[in-house]
Amino acid sequence: MTGYIILADGFELIEALTPLDVLRRGGIDIKTVSINNMNKVTSSNGVHMLTDLVLGEEDLYKSEFIILPGGYPGYENLYKNLEVKKLAEFYLNNNKLVGAICGAPYTLSRWGLLKDRVVTCHSSVSENLDVLRYSKDNIVVFGNLITSPGAGHSLTFSLTIAEQLLDKVTTDKIKLGMELK
Amino acid sequence: MTGYIILADGFELIEALTPLDVLRRGGIDIKTVSINNMNKVTSSNGVHMLTDLVLGEEDLYKSEFIILPGGYPGYENLYKNLEVKKLAEFYLNNNKLVGAICGAPYTLSRWGLLKDRVVTCHSSVSENLDVLRYSKDNIVVFGNLITSPGAGHSLTFSLTIAEQLLDKVTTDKIKLGMELK
Repeated sequence: MTGYIILADGFELIEALTPLDVLRRGGIDIKTVSINNMNKVTSSNGVHMLTDLVLGEEDLYKSEFIILPGGYPGYENLYKNLEVKKLAEFYLNNNKLVGAICGAPYTLSRWGLLKDRVVTCHSSVSENLDVLRYSKDNIVVFGNLITSPGAGHSLTFSLTIAEQLLDKVTTDKIKLGMELK
Repeated sequence: MTGYIILADGFELIEALTPLDVLRRGGIDIKTVSINNMNKVTSSNGVHMLTDLVLGEEDLYKSEFIILPGGYPGYENLYKNLEVKKLAEFYLNNNKLVGAICGAPYTLSRWGLLKDRVVTCHSSVSENLDVLRYSKDNIVVFGNLITSPGAGHSLTFSLTIAEQLLDKVTTDKIKLGMELK
């Protein structure tokens, strides 16, 4: 199984990397994709990392899922990228899993993709959402869209995605390795 | 306030970066330090990142705290580095905070630094510990040493360190920003 985490400068570090950590533990071939013209991206808190791919380098439409982290200005930078919009729209409309956390659900909403969805997102942008219903839950699974309000819920967000993609034996093994009893 | 996260190839990604995320939100000048001869380090799950410093580039003895993440072979690579041993010993003996998670408490134990301390660590190495007492708790604060068993407790580990270093107003603000109510 394959999937992608889409990274713009200003991404929230653990919102992006906790899913990577959890899903790689489950044997999923998850790759980081930079929307810069180079592999180097910088998180909102100043960590420089080198991604596996640059947008356009590989066909991103064939995988099982994508994940969009929040972080400022990461979610604004994602919003400005119409290739990412096209990709997210394709995943949402083709019953492929989309995970969006913090400001990322707001990005999807600004693209007009969430009008018929129940979502949560970071409280700082929740009033601007154009969605069926805004939920204050810490994790919302609505069809193929999984949303969460912020960095403090990165692990729950990641484990929920894992549970959607993998069997119970595998997710239990992930939890055990992370010392979650 | 300043502090350092010491990184060797094979470090556990979120064990290292969750403390960075949480503590930078609290305004702490926390820097990543590579024990390689270059800024590039690679996590146990294959993420390449660029650190703020290389070991030896700055005097690491003047800060308030250090953090040692686990991850295999990260904690083995830390163990082999006698500069890191010397640094950890100095912090432990001078009442400066040391955070160690997963396999890192085992590393400290192999250096003979925990004989009079109560600690937790990853269950896979707990039988080899040379400590006063091994605890199965998910977080152990024993004097100036904070330990935790693994990646699933990275956030609790980080918030506990924050609570030791910062006032309640600041830690509450960190939690709020992360959407932890």
